[in-house]
Amino acid sequence: MIWENIAPGVWKGTVGEAEEYNLLTAAAAKPNLPAISRLGQAPFPVEKTEIKAKLLDGKTYLQFPLEREEQVFGFGLNFKTIHQRGRIMRLHVDHYGGQDNGRTHAPVPFYVTSNGYGVFINSSRYLDVYAGSGSRLDSENPAEAMDRNTNPDWTASPYSDAVEILVPAKGVEVYVFAGPSMLEAVQRFNLFNGGGPIPPRWGLGFTQRVHRLFDQDQVLAEVNEFEEKGYPLDFIGLEPGWQSKSYPNTFAWDESRFPDPEKLIQKLKEKHISLNLWINPYVSPEASFYEKLKPYYGSHTVWAGAVPDLSIPEAQKIYWETFRKDHVLPGVGGYKIDEVDGYDRWLWPDVAQFPSGLAAEQLRQTYGLLVQKQSSELFREQNRRTYGLVRASNGGGVSFPYVIYNDYYDHKDFITALINSGFSGLLWTPEARASKTAEEWLRRFQTVVFSPMAMINAWASGTKPWSYPEVAEEIKEMALLRMKMMPYWYSSFALYHFKGIPPFRAMQLEKGFSIKTEKQTNATSTLEENPYNEAIKKEINDQYMAGPSLLVAPIFAGEEVRKVVLPKGKWYDFYTGKYVGDGEVITINARLDQIPVFVKDGGIVPLMEPMLHAPGKNQLYDLKILHYGESPGQFPLYDDDGISYDYENGHYSWRDINVIKESNGKWKGTISTVGAQKPNNVGKVTWVFMSEKEGQNPLK
Amino acid sequence: MIWENIAPGVWKGTVGEAEEYNLLTAAAAKPNLPAISRLGQAPFPVEKTEIKAKLLDGKTYLQFPLEREEQVFGFGLNFKTIHQRGRIMRLHVDHYGGQDNGRTHAPVPFYVTSNGYGVFINSSRYLDVYAGSGSRLDSENPAEAMDRNTNPDWTASPYSDAVEILVPAKGVEVYVFAGPSMLEAVQRFNLFNGGGPIPPRWGLGFTQRVHRLFDQDQVLAEVNEFEEKGYPLDFIGLEPGWQSKSYPNTFAWDESRFPDPEKLIQKLKEKHISLNLWINPYVSPEASFYEKLKPYYGSHTVWAGAVPDLSIPEAQKIYWETFRKDHVLPGVGGYKIDEVDGYDRWLWPDVAQFPSGLAAEQLRQTYGLLVQKQSSELFREQNRRTYGLVRASNGGGVSFPYVIYNDYYDHKDFITALINSGFSGLLWTPEARASKTAEEWLRRFQTVVFSPMAMINAWASGTKPWSYPEVAEEIKEMALLRMKMMPYWYSSFALYHFKGIPPFRAMQLEKGFSIKTEKQTNATSTLEENPYNEAIKKEINDQYMAGPSLLVAPIFAGEEVRKVVLPKGKWYDFYTGKYVGDGEVITINARLDQIPVFVKDGGIVPLMEPMLHAPGKNQLYDLKILHYGESPGQFPLYDDDGISYDYENGHYSWRDINVIKESNGKWKGTISTVGAQKPNNVGKVTWVFMSEKEGQNPLK
Repeated sequence: MIWENIAPGVWKGTVGEAEEYNLLTAAAAKPNLPAISRLGQAPFPVEKTEIKAKLLDGKTYLQFPLEREEQVFGFGLNFKTIHQRGRIMRLHVDHYGGQDNGRTHAPVPFYVTSNGYGVFINSSRYLDVYAGSGSRLDSENPAEAMDRNTNPDWTASPYSDAVEILVPAKGVEVYVFAGPSMLEAVQRFNLFNGGGPIPPRWGLGFTQRVHRLFDQDQVLAEVNEFEEKGYPLDFIGLEPGWQSKSYPNTFAWDESRFPDPEKLIQKLKEKHISLNLWINPYVSPEASFYEKLKPYYGSHTVWAGAVPDLSIPEAQKIYWETFRKDHVLPGVGGYKIDEVDGYDRWLWPDVAQFPSGLAAEQLRQTYGLLVQKQSSELFREQNRRTYGLVRASNGGGVSFPYVIYNDYYDHKDFITALINSGFSGLLWTPEARASKTAEEWLRRFQTVVFSPMAMINAWASGTKPWSYPEVAEEIKEMALLRMKMMPYWYSSFALYHFKGIPPFRAMQLEKGFSIKTEKQTNATSTLEENPYNEAIKKEINDQYMAGPSLLVAPIFAGEEVRKVVLPKGKWYDFYTGKYVGDGEVITINARLDQIPVFVKDGGIVPLMEPMLHAPGKNQLYDLKILHYGESPGQFPLYDDDGISYDYENGHYSWRDINVIKESNGKWKGTISTVGAQKPNNVGKVTWVFMSEKEGQNPLK
Repeated sequence: MIWENIAPGVWKGTVGEAEEYNLLTAAAAKPNLPAISRLGQAPFPVEKTEIKAKLLDGKTYLQFPLEREEQVFGFGLNFKTIHQRGRIMRLHVDHYGGQDNGRTHAPVPFYVTSNGYGVFINSSRYLDVYAGSGSRLDSENPAEAMDRNTNPDWTASPYSDAVEILVPAKGVEVYVFAGPSMLEAVQRFNLFNGGGPIPPRWGLGFTQRVHRLFDQDQVLAEVNEFEEKGYPLDFIGLEPGWQSKSYPNTFAWDESRFPDPEKLIQKLKEKHISLNLWINPYVSPEASFYEKLKPYYGSHTVWAGAVPDLSIPEAQKIYWETFRKDHVLPGVGGYKIDEVDGYDRWLWPDVAQFPSGLAAEQLRQTYGLLVQKQSSELFREQNRRTYGLVRASNGGGVSFPYVIYNDYYDHKDFITALINSGFSGLLWTPEARASKTAEEWLRRFQTVVFSPMAMINAWASGTKPWSYPEVAEEIKEMALLRMKMMPYWYSSFALYHFKGIPPFRAMQLEKGFSIKTEKQTNATSTLEENPYNEAIKKEINDQYMAGPSLLVAPIFAGEEVRKVVLPKGKWYDFYTGKYVGDGEVITINARLDQIPVFVKDGGIVPLMEPMLHAPGKNQLYDLKILHYGESPGQFPLYDDDGISYDYENGHYSWRDINVIKESNGKWKGTISTVGAQKPNNVGKVTWVFMSEKEGQNPLK
C-alpha cells in the first residue's frame, strides 16, 4: 500500500488499480482542507506495516490491526449494535431487515476505534467486513486451542486481532483519519467529506406528512389546523398522489388533486410553510421525458419504471429538468426520495446492466448519493438551501442536506440508529408515525424533538400531534421546546459543517466517556466496585449527545425508571439545573411530560421565544441564554440568513457566549458583537444561571 | 454460449473461461453415461437463443427463459419453500439461518422447471440467483406500469420472465438436462453426477447417537439396552469425546474413555452394530500430523484449529492417513462430519487464503464435497460401503453416501427440506432429537422412519426410543416397520443409484401431479369447482413420495386432521388397502400410532420379517409382498451383498415382481429368478393382495 499524507492527520493509501468510480467521486465530495488543518498535525495512528493489502482472485484483501482492548464503532446505520468488534457484515445498501449484518440504508465503510483513529474504504462495491472475527494462523496473538470436551473456557468466538475486509475489485483507496480522540477522527472524516450540511432554518422546525391522496385544499386545511391549534409547523410533505401517476412516476402534478400547484406553494409561503414532495426516481412510460431519456436507462425496471443511469451527465441533464422547472423554480422546498435503498426484489438485480458501464452493484451502493447530490444542486442553483428525506446514503455523502428515514419502527432501535449515525457522517430521523398508546406517542415525539428532523410521518396513519388528547398539551410543549431551542440546534449544525462535529452522536465520542477505561480497570473491578466500568462494557445504545452539551436519555413506552451513564465531570438536569452526578451510573424516575436530558458542567443553551415557524430571513429573535453548573461556560453562537448559501462566501457570524463567575461570586454572561456586514438576527439577550434557580424550570 | 451435446438429453454450455475448479471437479463426479442413454434421446428443451450469457465486470451474467405459468424447483436444501419462482438467493454454503435465501447446507445451483428440464451451473462461487424476480426493459413480456395511487391491481412484484444468475467469474459451465418430465430431468442430473449412493444395508437400519463424554462401557451398555428392550439398532454414533482433544481435533482416541477401541469395535460387530465417529475437519496443534501438514493449512483457523487445504492431493494423503489407520482399518463404519457449512463467524472468513491458490469462497462451497469424497474413499479402499452424516454438500455430490443434518429443529421445515432434497440430488434426515411431549416424539419418529436415515440424534438430550413410556410401544412398532420395509428401501436406493430416481421426493415429480394443470384450468376454475387445482397453486410442502409408490403425509404434533393432495390415479391406504381417492384433496383424521401413508394403484411393497439388525452378507430373509388396488403392478426388487462395492462389478440382481389379475378374477404374483452368480438373499415369498383384505392391517 502506498501512503500519501493529503491533509494534516489524513492519509490516503492506494493498493492496486483503484476504481475511478467510488464513493467520493459519486458524491463529488469536496474536502474542507482548511478546517481539517485547524485540527492540527497528528502522527499516523498505527504502524503502517500493520496495515496489509493483497491482490488475489481479482479482489483486494485488506487487514488492519486491533489491540486487545480496542473497540470498533461505525460501519454506517446500524440499528441494534454500537460495538462492532467481532461482527461480520456485508456492506450493502438495502432496507434495514432487522439484523445488523451490513444491509442497511447507509452501510458506510468507515470505522473508528477506541484507539482514536478512523479508516475509510472508498469503494462502491459490496464489501465483506470481518471486524475482528477471523483468527489467523500466523497471528502474533493467535486464538488459543482448547479442548471443548473438558475445558469450560472453550469459546465459539476465539480471539481475533484484525479487521479484515474483502474488496471485490483489483485495487482500492483507503483513507486513515488520525485523532488522537475518536471524535477528532470523526471530525476529520466529516470535514474530508465536506462537513455536515447547515439546514435552512425552517428545516429545524416541525414537519408533518399528509395522506397520499390529499388534494391542495386538504393540504391547506391541514396547515390551517396546525395554526389554529397553536402547534408549530415549518414544512409539509406530499406523498405519491401529488403526481398524475406514481410507482413508476410521471413527476407531473396531478391536475385533479393539484389544479394550481403554484398557487398552493404561494399560499403556503404566506403561511411560512415550505412544501416537500415525495418521489422515487423511477420513470413512468408516461413521464414527459421518458422517450428522451431512453438511451440512459438500465436494463431492468423498478416496479415497471425505468431506472435512469444518473452517473451519466447527459442523463442528469434530461432527468432533472422537470424537477427544476415544475417543482423547484415554483418554490418547492425539498424532496423525500424513496426506494433508493432496497429490497433486492424491488430494485434492479445485480445482473442489471447500465449504459455507463458501471456494475449494478456500484449503482446500488451510490444511487442514494447521486440523487442527493443532484437534487440538492437544483436548490443550490437558486441559492436556496433544502432539507429533505432520503432512504439511502453512503460514505462521501456527509454534506448532503438529507436525513435518512425508513419503514422500520422499533423505538429503541431508532435511537440506536441515531447514535450510530454520528459515527458515519449521517443524519437519521426517529420519526413518529403512529402509536398504540398516548404514552408511546409522547415518548416517540420526545425523541423526535431531540433529533435532526422533527417529523410526524403520518401519511398512512393520519395521526396529528394532537391526536391523543390526553397528551396533546405535552406534545405541544415538546414541539415548542424544539422551536425555543432553535439557536442551539442551528449552532450545533454549524459546528457539524465547520468543524465536523456530529450534532447527534454516541456517548463514546464524549470526553470523560472513554471506552479505554475498560483496559485500565478491567482486571480488578467488579460490578460493586465500579458500576460505571461495568456499564460501558455493555453497549450503551439508548442515550446520546445532542449538540455541544446535552445528554439525552429517552424513556420508552412502558418504562418508568432507567439508568443513565454519566461521563466523568459534573452533570445537571436540563429542566431544573439540579446536580445529578459525575462519572457514574444513575437511576432516574421518568416523568411523562419530560424526556430526561442532562447538561454538562458549564453547559450553555441559547433559547429563543417559541414561534410557530422558524424565523425568516432578517427576522429578529430574542435570546434567553441558560448556563448550567459550577464551571464557566462558553458557546459559539452561529447565525446567517437562514435560507441561502451565502454563508459559503463568508456571510455568517459566530458570536462567543461566555459565562464566568465574577470575584463577587455572581455569574456574568457576555456575548461578543459582530461586524456590520455579518448576519445577526439576535434581538434582546437575557441570562439564566441555572445554579441560582433552585429547581425552577425556565424551559416551560 | 457454446453448446455441446455430451449425452442423450444432456448439454454442456460454456461461456468465457470457465474455472477449472468447480463443483464437478471438486466432487470428482463420474457421469453414468450408459444409464443416461437408457433414458433416451430428447431435444434441447428451450430455444437455445433464449439462454443468454454476457461477460461484464469480471463476471458472467446468465439469463434463462421462463414462460408465464412455469414454476421453478430446486436450488438445494430449502426449508420453507418448494416453489422457487420469484425468489432471490445468494447460493452460499452455510448453516440454515431460518430463511430460504440461499444460505443453506447444500445450496445446489440446479433447478428444474415445470416445463420439464433442468439447469445446473457448475461453479464453486457464491451465485446470485434471481429466479424470476427481475423485470427487463427489453423483455418481450415486460412488467406493466400501473398507477399505484389509483390502481388496486398494482403489485410490488411485477412480472418477470427469466431466471438470471450472476456468476462472479470470467466464465462458467452450464448444463441443461432434458425431460420431458421434471423427474426425468432430475434423473439425468443425478446420473450425470454418478447416481445416488446405495447405502450398506445396515445404513437403512436404526441409529442412535450417545452423549459426547460416554466411555466404551457406556456405549456397550446402551447397545445392550436396545437389544434387551427389543428395539432395532444398526449403528451407533460417538460424539466429540471419543477424541483426546476436540474443537480443534486430534482425531486420536481418548485413552481414558476408550482404552481399547479395537475391542469395542469387535464387540459391537458381534452384536451387528456399526460404529460412527463424529469429527470436524479442523486440526488441533496436538494432532500427531499437525506439523507434517503445516504447508497445507489455510491462513485462518476454525476455533483455533488449522484448516487443511483438502483440494491438494499431498494434503489429502497426510490428512487421511490417521483416519485410515486408527478408524477405518480397525472397523469404524462411518463418520459424522460437522462444521463444514458455517456460520461465517465459525468458519474461515472470505479473506482467508489457501496454499492451493483457491479462494476462500471456493473452498467454502466445496469443503463438504471434499470431505465426503475423500472420507468415503477410505472405505472404498477396503471394499466396504459407508453411510454417514455430513453438514454440507453441493452439486456434484449426488453419489456420496452421506446424509445431511443440522441443528435446526422445526418439524414441518424438516419435511419441506426432505421434499426439496429430492430436487437436488441430496439426502436429508429429519432426525428426532428431543421433544416437549410424547405426541411430538412419536410424530417426529414417524417421519424419521420414512426418511433416508432413521436416526435419534440424542447425544445432548439423552432421549431413547422408549423415553416416553406412553408411546414406547408405538415407537417400537414404527422402528420395526422401518426394518420390515428394508427390501422396499433398499430397492428404492438402488433405483436412485441406477436410474437416478430420488428415494424421497416432491409430489411435483410424481405423474398425475402436474403443476401444469394450473395453466390449463386456471381461467375458469374456482375453489368449489376444482379444489385440487387450488391446492397445487399453493406450495405442497408437507407431503412427499417415498420409494416407487408410497405417498407420505406426516402429522405434526398438535394436529388431528390434515389435507392430502392425491395425484391423479387411484390411491389406497397403506395400512388397510382401502381406497381413499383419485386426483383430489382429501381430509384425513390422524391416528396417533400411524403416519398417514398412501399407495398408488398397483403399488407393490415388499416386506421382510422384522429383525433388530439389518440382514448381513448372505443372510436369508423371507419376503411378504403387498399389492394395492385394482391395477396390475410391478416392482423391481434389488439385491446384492449389502456391504461391498462388488455391485459395481455386476454382483447384484434385479428381480421383477409382477402382480396380475388372472382370468378367474384372482390376483397372482410372480417373482423372477436370478442366475446362480447373482446375489439373492430372499428365502420364502408370500403374497398379500390388499384389495382382498377388507381393512385388515398386515403391517402389524
